[in-house]
Amino acid sequence: MDMRKLVGRNFARLRQAKDLTQEQVAERSGLSQQYLSGLERGRRNPTIITLYELARALDVSHVELVLPPDEK
Amino acid sequence: MDMRKLVGRNFARLRQAKDLTQEQVAERSGLSQQYLSGLERGRRNPTIITLYELARALDVSHVELVLPPDEK
Repeated sequence: MDMRKLVGRNFARLRQAKDLTQEQVAERSGLSQQYLSGLERGRRNPTIITLYELARALDVSHVELVLPPDEK
Repeated sequence: MDMRKLVGRNFARLRQAKDLTQEQVAERSGLSQQYLSGLERGRRNPTIITLYELARALDVSHVELVLPPDEK
């Protein structure tokens, strides 16, 4: 499993479901919009602490960010 | 939430449930026993790729490693 793609896709899907832009999430999370763009393209390998910060910025559980497609 | 403690506790619990030593998991995962010891004490901040490798070494889903206590 490519964890970077999995988390990137989950993040992009949840962000869009909340009607948030990458810029808005960047502001909430303290992470840069460039980082979030790379994350959504599966190019980032966040730590578990960053994973938690990403989830908080979307107001979702960090567990949702790592769920495989067949467990949603 | 302290993600390092959460993942460390989940990892230790699941490893013990499988009757595996830190040394055995080190051999399976390619991570050092010192790393695993620090992880179980909540002192490590693994990336999502390392999280996946840790889960594979225990033959569990990576989701189990990040589940909060009240979602088990």
